[in-house]
Amino acid sequence: MRLWDKGFSTDKKIDHFTVGDDRELDLHLAKYDVIASKAHAKMLGKIGLLTGEETDDLVRELDHIADTVEKGKFVIEDAFEDMHSKIEYVLTEKLGDTGKKIHTARSRNDQILVAMHLYLKDELTEIKSQTKVLFDLLLRLAETHKEVLLPGYTHLQIAMPSSFGLWFSAYAESLIDDLYFIDAAFKIADQNPLGSAAGYGSSFPIDRTYTTEEMDFETMKYNVVAAQMGRGKVEKATAFGMANIAATLSKLAMDICLYMSQNFNFISFPDELTTGSSIMPHKKNPDVFELVRGKCNKLQAVPNQLTLVINNLPSGYHRDLQLVKEIIVPAIQDMKACLEILTFSLEKISVNDTILDDPKYDYLFSVDTLNELVQQGIPFRDAYKKMGMEIQKGTFIPKRDITHTHEGSLGDLCLDGIRKKMHKIT
Amino acid sequence: MRLWDKGFSTDKKIDHFTVGDDRELDLHLAKYDVIASKAHAKMLGKIGLLTGEETDDLVRELDHIADTVEKGKFVIEDAFEDMHSKIEYVLTEKLGDTGKKIHTARSRNDQILVAMHLYLKDELTEIKSQTKVLFDLLLRLAETHKEVLLPGYTHLQIAMPSSFGLWFSAYAESLIDDLYFIDAAFKIADQNPLGSAAGYGSSFPIDRTYTTEEMDFETMKYNVVAAQMGRGKVEKATAFGMANIAATLSKLAMDICLYMSQNFNFISFPDELTTGSSIMPHKKNPDVFELVRGKCNKLQAVPNQLTLVINNLPSGYHRDLQLVKEIIVPAIQDMKACLEILTFSLEKISVNDTILDDPKYDYLFSVDTLNELVQQGIPFRDAYKKMGMEIQKGTFIPKRDITHTHEGSLGDLCLDGIRKKMHKIT
Amino acid sequence: MRLWDKGFSTDKKIDHFTVGDDRELDLHLAKYDVIASKAHAKMLGKIGLLTGEETDDLVRELDHIADTVEKGKFVIEDAFEDMHSKIEYVLTEKLGDTGKKIHTARSRNDQILVAMHLYLKDELTEIKSQTKVLFDLLLRLAETHKEVLLPGYTHLQIAMPSSFGLWFSAYAESLIDDLYFIDAAFKIADQNPLGSAAGYGSSFPIDRTYTTEEMDFETMKYNVVAAQMGRGKVEKATAFGMANIAATLSKLAMDICLYMSQNFNFISFPDELTTGSSIMPHKKNPDVFELVRGKCNKLQAVPNQLTLVINNLPSGYHRDLQLVKEIIVPAIQDMKACLEILTFSLEKISVNDTILDDPKYDYLFSVDTLNELVQQGIPFRDAYKKMGMEIQKGTFIPKRDITHTHEGSLGDLCLDGIRKKMHKIT
Amino acid sequence: MRLWDKGFSTDKKIDHFTVGDDRELDLHLAKYDVIASKAHAKMLGKIGLLTGEETDDLVRELDHIADTVEKGKFVIEDAFEDMHSKIEYVLTEKLGDTGKKIHTARSRNDQILVAMHLYLKDELTEIKSQTKVLFDLLLRLAETHKEVLLPGYTHLQIAMPSSFGLWFSAYAESLIDDLYFIDAAFKIADQNPLGSAAGYGSSFPIDRTYTTEEMDFETMKYNVVAAQMGRGKVEKATAFGMANIAATLSKLAMDICLYMSQNFNFISFPDELTTGSSIMPHKKNPDVFELVRGKCNKLQAVPNQLTLVINNLPSGYHRDLQLVKEIIVPAIQDMKACLEILTFSLEKISVNDTILDDPKYDYLFSVDTLNELVQQGIPFRDAYKKMGMEIQKGTFIPKRDITHTHEGSLGDLCLDGIRKKMHKIT
Repeated sequence: MRLWDKGFSTDKKIDHFTVGDDRELDLHLAKYDVIASKAHAKMLGKIGLLTGEETDDLVRELDHIADTVEKGKFVIEDAFEDMHSKIEYVLTEKLGDTGKKIHTARSRNDQILVAMHLYLKDELTEIKSQTKVLFDLLLRLAETHKEVLLPGYTHLQIAMPSSFGLWFSAYAESLIDDLYFIDAAFKIADQNPLGSAAGYGSSFPIDRTYTTEEMDFETMKYNVVAAQMGRGKVEKATAFGMANIAATLSKLAMDICLYMSQNFNFISFPDELTTGSSIMPHKKNPDVFELVRGKCNKLQAVPNQLTLVINNLPSGYHRDLQLVKEIIVPAIQDMKACLEILTFSLEKISVNDTILDDPKYDYLFSVDTLNELVQQGIPFRDAYKKMGMEIQKGTFIPKRDITHTHEGSLGDLCLDGIRKKMHKIT
Repeated sequence: MRLWDKGFSTDKKIDHFTVGDDRELDLHLAKYDVIASKAHAKMLGKIGLLTGEETDDLVRELDHIADTVEKGKFVIEDAFEDMHSKIEYVLTEKLGDTGKKIHTARSRNDQILVAMHLYLKDELTEIKSQTKVLFDLLLRLAETHKEVLLPGYTHLQIAMPSSFGLWFSAYAESLIDDLYFIDAAFKIADQNPLGSAAGYGSSFPIDRTYTTEEMDFETMKYNVVAAQMGRGKVEKATAFGMANIAATLSKLAMDICLYMSQNFNFISFPDELTTGSSIMPHKKNPDVFELVRGKCNKLQAVPNQLTLVINNLPSGYHRDLQLVKEIIVPAIQDMKACLEILTFSLEKISVNDTILDDPKYDYLFSVDTLNELVQQGIPFRDAYKKMGMEIQKGTFIPKRDITHTHEGSLGDLCLDGIRKKMHKIT
Repeated sequence: MRLWDKGFSTDKKIDHFTVGDDRELDLHLAKYDVIASKAHAKMLGKIGLLTGEETDDLVRELDHIADTVEKGKFVIEDAFEDMHSKIEYVLTEKLGDTGKKIHTARSRNDQILVAMHLYLKDELTEIKSQTKVLFDLLLRLAETHKEVLLPGYTHLQIAMPSSFGLWFSAYAESLIDDLYFIDAAFKIADQNPLGSAAGYGSSFPIDRTYTTEEMDFETMKYNVVAAQMGRGKVEKATAFGMANIAATLSKLAMDICLYMSQNFNFISFPDELTTGSSIMPHKKNPDVFELVRGKCNKLQAVPNQLTLVINNLPSGYHRDLQLVKEIIVPAIQDMKACLEILTFSLEKISVNDTILDDPKYDYLFSVDTLNELVQQGIPFRDAYKKMGMEIQKGTFIPKRDITHTHEGSLGDLCLDGIRKKMHKIT
Repeated sequence: MRLWDKGFSTDKKIDHFTVGDDRELDLHLAKYDVIASKAHAKMLGKIGLLTGEETDDLVRELDHIADTVEKGKFVIEDAFEDMHSKIEYVLTEKLGDTGKKIHTARSRNDQILVAMHLYLKDELTEIKSQTKVLFDLLLRLAETHKEVLLPGYTHLQIAMPSSFGLWFSAYAESLIDDLYFIDAAFKIADQNPLGSAAGYGSSFPIDRTYTTEEMDFETMKYNVVAAQMGRGKVEKATAFGMANIAATLSKLAMDICLYMSQNFNFISFPDELTTGSSIMPHKKNPDVFELVRGKCNKLQAVPNQLTLVINNLPSGYHRDLQLVKEIIVPAIQDMKACLEILTFSLEKISVNDTILDDPKYDYLFSVDTLNELVQQGIPFRDAYKKMGMEIQKGTFIPKRDITHTHEGSLGDLCLDGIRKKMHKIT
C-alpha cells in the first residue's frame, strides 16, 4: 500500500528503488512519530477538527503503539512503505474513519520533519551525556597519573617534558569545545517544524503554539518554508557536532595506537582489549582503538556526504531529502558506539611510569635547564653558548627536577578550572 | 634571516617551499600578533622577568608597530620568514637586547596560536554583524512584499501557494540557525592559548590569568597540550560556522538564478547587477548570484580541506599546521564578500506581482479548495471525489481568496517572533 | 570462534564493536575468497607443500562451497567472525587437518585483499557494461528525436537553439570520459596481491606467477608492501571511477527534474514512473530521478569517505582498513541500481515537440540571425546595429530555419564518431 | 573595458567581486589561448571567413604575443577583465578591424575551455614526467639499500622483517597505479572542445576537424553540449589524478616523519633539509616532509572542492564555473612543487643499517622461524607449541638468516618487473 498510489500498478523495480532501507531506519524514528501524532491529534481536538471522543480514541491507540515500540515489538511489514503508513494503518484498523482523520492538516513531509527533530534532540542529549562520562574518566585518569612524565613531541621529535596528567586532561578539555557544537545543533533541533505541511503551511486554523508546548520544544520554527528547508540542515548540524567529537576521539586513538607500539611502549591494555598471536606474544594489536579511529574518521566524512546530497537544490521539498535519513541514523549509532567503547576501554589503561629512565629522553630537559640558568641571572647568550658546548661534548647533564608552575602546565593542571568550564554547559 | 637557522646555508629550494604565502597572509594577522606581544611584555614585567623600563619600551614600540599596521604601511620583506621575525627585528633594531627579551617564555607556536584566536574572534564578530544586516534586509523585504503570491513547489512541481513574504523571511529565519554555529566557534576562539609555548608550557612562572584578562578573553584554554591541539581545530570550528551560512546563501542564490530565468520570471534586478548583450536584450545573466552560489559552495568545502590537513596527526605540533592559515584566511574574506554583495544586490530586487495570473498556476489552490469543502462539513471522501471529477472535466474553478492564518503561514508571517529569536543572540 | 582468540574470554562489547557488518558484506565477497583459495591450494600442491591428494580434496570441497555460494545458500553464522573463518571451518569439518593446511603461507590480510581485487574486477566490468547499455539508449534517443528543438540556456537564461538530439547524445559522449576512469580502476584491480601475506611476504617458496595466471590477473602487484598498501587504494580508485559516472547521471537527473516542471514542460514520463495525487492531477513528481540524483550525489562523497579513513596512516596494515569494505560494497550496489533504473526509465521518456512554439523562445535565434546577415556580407557592426534597433522596437522577426552544419552541432550530431570513440574502449 | 558592458556604469563593487584573481591565473593560461586563437584564425581563413592576408596578419601578431608570454613579459592590466580581453585589445590596436574578426564564430566560453584543455595536457605531461623521475630515484634507492633490514609493522606493532629495498620500491610501484589515473585524465583533456561556442555550436560553417589537427588533439569532443559540460569535469579528472599521486606521497612523508623520530631512528637527512635548535641538537625537524604531507593532504581535498562547485547545476554554462580555475591552477603548482622537493630531498636520505641490532626487534623473526620448523617436517601444532613455550620462558633464539625468495619479497624485489610495468605507460 503506497500512499501515493494512483490506481496504476507501480512497477516493482521502482518500488524497490524508491523505498530503500526506510523501514529499518524508521524503527529508530517510530517513537517520535507517535509522540508528534499525539500532539497533533490533541491540537486537532482543541481547534474543533476532531471531537473529544475522536481525540481520546486516537491518543489511546497511539499510546498503545508507543507501548509496542517501547517493547521492541513494532514491526513495519513489506506491505508498508514506511512507519507513517503502518501507523495510519493500525489506527484505521482500530478506529475506522477516525484513524484517517489524524492526517488532517498535516503531510508526511512535516511528519518526518518533526519526528527527526524529536529524535535528534534525544540522540544529541545522549551523545552529550556519553561525552560527559568520558570527560569525567579522562579527568580522573589525569588526577591519578598526574606525576607520571611523558616525552612531549613536536614534529614527532623529542622536545619537552609532558605528563600523563597533561595528556589525559588535554583530551578532556578539548571535548568541551566539541560540546559547544552539540549544543548549537540541539538549539537548531529544538524548534517545532510541525505545521509546515508540504512546506507551505495549511489553510486549516492549526495551533502551532499548542503543539510546540505539547512536545516540549523551546520554540517553533515559525516560517513554514524555513521549517521545510530545515530538512537536511538539522541533520547536517548534528553531523557537524559529531564530526568535532569524532576528530578528538580519532586523535586520541591515534596517540594510543602509537604509544602502544614497541617503539614507544608508553601504555598498555589488558589482553581482552587487544588481539595477538601465540607465537608473537609481544604483539598487542590495538584493534579497538584502530576501529575507533577509523569509525571516527568516517564520521568526519558525514557532513560532506550530507552537503553533497542537499546542495544546490532550490527551495521546496525534493525526494533526494529522503536519503538524509540513511546517512544520519547509522552515523549516530557509530558515534555512540565509539564513545561507549572508548570509555569502557580507557578505564583499563595501564601507564608505564618509567618511560623517562631511557637516556634517549635526556634532551627533553635542555630547554628548561637553559631557562633555569637564565632565571639564575646568567645572560641568555652566555647560558646558551655554555649549554650548546656541553651538549656537543656530551657532558650535558639535564636537570630532571625542574618544576612547571603556571596555570595549565604539568605542575598545575587546573583540573577544577576545566571541570567548571564543563559544568557551565552540562 | 630564519629563526631556526643553524649556521648551515639552507637551500633556497627548501626556503621557497616552506615559507609559501606566509608573508602575505600574515598581513591579516600582524595586528593580533602585536596585541598579544603587548600583553606578553606587560606580563613579563609583572612577574619580574622584564624591568619596568624594558616593559615600557617594548609596549611603546609595539604601539608604534600597531600604528604602522593600522595605516596599512606594515611590510614583511622577503628577508623575513614571517611577521614574527619582522616584528622581532624591528624591536631589536630599536631597543637592542630588550627587543629580544620579548621572546622570553613563549614560542612562535603560541604566538601564532594566540594571534589566530584574536583574529578569528574579530572576523567571527564581523561575519555575525554582516549576517545580521542581511537578516534585517530580508525581513524588511518580507514585510514589503508580504502580499505578493508565489507558486510553492515540491519536487519542482507546482504545489501550493507561497508568497514573497514567506520566501524572504524563510532565509532570514534560517540564518539564525547558522549563527548558533558562529557563536559556538566564537566560544572556542574566546579562550586564551598564550602560555602553551611549544605545546608543553614553560618553566618560567608566567601569569596566564593576567594575559587572559589583558587580551579580553572570556577564559583561558587551561591545559597547554589542549591549547596546542586547538591549532587547526579553532579554524575548523570557524569553517563549520561559515559553511552553514554559505549553505543558506547558496540556496538563496540558486532560487534567485532560477527565478530570474524566463521560464519563471518571478524577480529581476537592475542592469548594473546583471550581464547581457545588445542582440540578446532579454538576457539578464545573474553573474553576481552565480558567483555567490559558487563561492559559497567552495566555502562548504573548507571544513573538509582542514580536516584532511590535520586529521590522523598524533598530538604535538607538526609543520602541516602552517597550511591551515592559507586555507582559512582567504575563506573568511570570501565569506564576507558574499555577505556584502548579496546584501548590496538584494536591496535592488524587483518582484513580479502578477505571477499567479498565469493559468498554469491554478492548480496551486486545489488542496486548499478541498480543505475548505471539508471545513464546510462535506465529508472528505465526497469532497475529494467531487473535486477530482471537476478537475478531470476541466470545470474546476480554484478559490483564490483562501486565507492561511496559522503561525508562520503566509497569512501570519510572525516576523516579530523571528526578530525576537535573532535578538536573543545578537 | 575468533581466529585471534588467545584463550582469554574476549568481552562481548568488543566483539560486537569489532565485527560490525562484516558477515553481511562478506556474502558479496565469498565467491572470490573461494576462487583465491582454490588457486592458493593448487599452488601449494605445485610447490610441494600439499600432497596431490590434499590438493584435490581441498579443490573439491572449495568447489562445493562455491556451489553453495552460487545458489545463495552460503550462510555465515554469528559464531564466525567472517567468511574466512566460516570457510576454514567447513574445510576442517570435512577434511580434518588437511582443511587447516589451506592457511599455510598466507594470512587473512592477503585473503581479503585478493578477494577484493577479484570482486572489484567483476563489479567494474558490470558497471562498464551497464554504462554501455545506457550509452546505447542515449544515442538511440538522440537519433529518434534529433529534429526536435529545445532552448539552450546559459546562466539559466534562454540563449541559443539546442535539440533533443544534442541533449541526449551529450550525456552519451560524457559517459565515455567516465569510462576512462573505470578502466584505470580496473587496471589497478587487475594485479594479483596474493602472496603479500601480512604485508611483508612469506618465507615459504610460494609461486606467485602461478596464482596470477590461475586467477587470470593481467600481472601481479610485485612488491608485497605495495600489495598491502593497495588495501583501501584499489577501493578508492573504484570510487573515483564511480564518482565520475555518478556526476554525469546526477546532472542528467537534474535536467530531467527541471524539464518535467510545469515551468519548462519539455519532457514527461508515464504515470508508473512518477508520483502524484488525485486532486493535483498536474503533479508528476519525478521521485525516481530525484533519487537517482540524490544517490549519485551520495556516491560522489565516497572517495572522500575512503580518503578520510585511510589517510595519514603509516605503511603497514591497520584495522581501520576493515571499514573500507562497508563503504565500497554498498556504494557499488547503489551505482548499479542507478544505472539500471535510469536506463529502465529513460526508455519511456516522451519529448514535447512543440516547445519552441512559445514566443518567449523567439530570441533564441537572434545570434544566428545576426551571423547570417554577416555571412551575407553585411559588415558586423551594421548588422548588429540594425538588429539591435529591430529588437528594441519589437519588430525583430527571428529566422527559425537556420541550419547548424559543423561537426557536433545540432545539424551534424556525429553519432558515429561518438560511437567509434566508445567502441575503442569496449 | 568589460566585454559585456552595456553602456551602463557597472558598479565597482560588482566588478571587484566578479573578476577575482582571474588576471593572475590567466598568466598560466595565456600561452594556450594564443595557440587556440592561431588555430581558430587559420580555420577561419580556410573556410573563407577571413582573407589570406587577414589570417596572416592575425597569425603573425599572435606569434608576437606568444613571444611576449614566453619571455614572461605578458601583462594583464587592471583595465582588462581577463587575458581574452587583453589579447583582443592588442590585436585590435595592431590590426584594427581585422583584430576583432578573430572573435567570429567563437565565444569566450569555448576560448577558456580549449585553453584549459591545452594547459591541462601540458601540466599532466609534466606531472607524469616528474613522477617518473621520482619513480626512478625510488628504484635506485631500493637497489642501493636492498640488503638493509627494517622492521615491518602491522597495527604499528613489530611484526615481520622488511627491508629498505621493499620500502622504497613499494612506493615506486604504487606510483604506477597513480599514473593510470593521470593517463585517464589526459585522455579526457585530449579532446578538442573548440567550436562549442556558448555551448550550442555556431551557425557558421566552422571546420572543427581542422582545428583538432592543428592543435594536435587526439580527437574532438564532438557534441557541443558535451564539450561545454566538460568545463569543470576535465579539471576534476585532473584533480582525481593528482589526488592519487598526492595520497602516495603523503603516506611516504608520514613514514619518513615517523622514521626520523628518535623512537624509530631509521633514517636521517642532512641539516640543510631539517630544522632544529642549538640547545636541542638532537632535533631534526622534518619540516619539508611535513609540508609535503600537508600539501598532499590539501591536494586530496581538491576533487571535493570542484565537485561542490559544479554539482547539481543543470546543463549549460553558469558563471560558477569561473571558480574552477582558481582551484585547479594553484593545485597543479602545489603538486609539481611536492614532486620536485620530494625527489630533491630523497636523494640525500641516509639509512640506518644497524636497526635490527636492537633486541626489541627479535620477535620479528618468530613467524619465519616457525615456518622453517614446519618446512623441516615438524607438524605445525608441535612446532607452534614448542616455540610458544620457548618464547614464554625467554629462551627463544630467533633465526636471523631466514631468506624470503618469492616474487616481490625482500629476497626478490622484482625491480625489473616493476620497471617494465612503468615502461608500458611512459
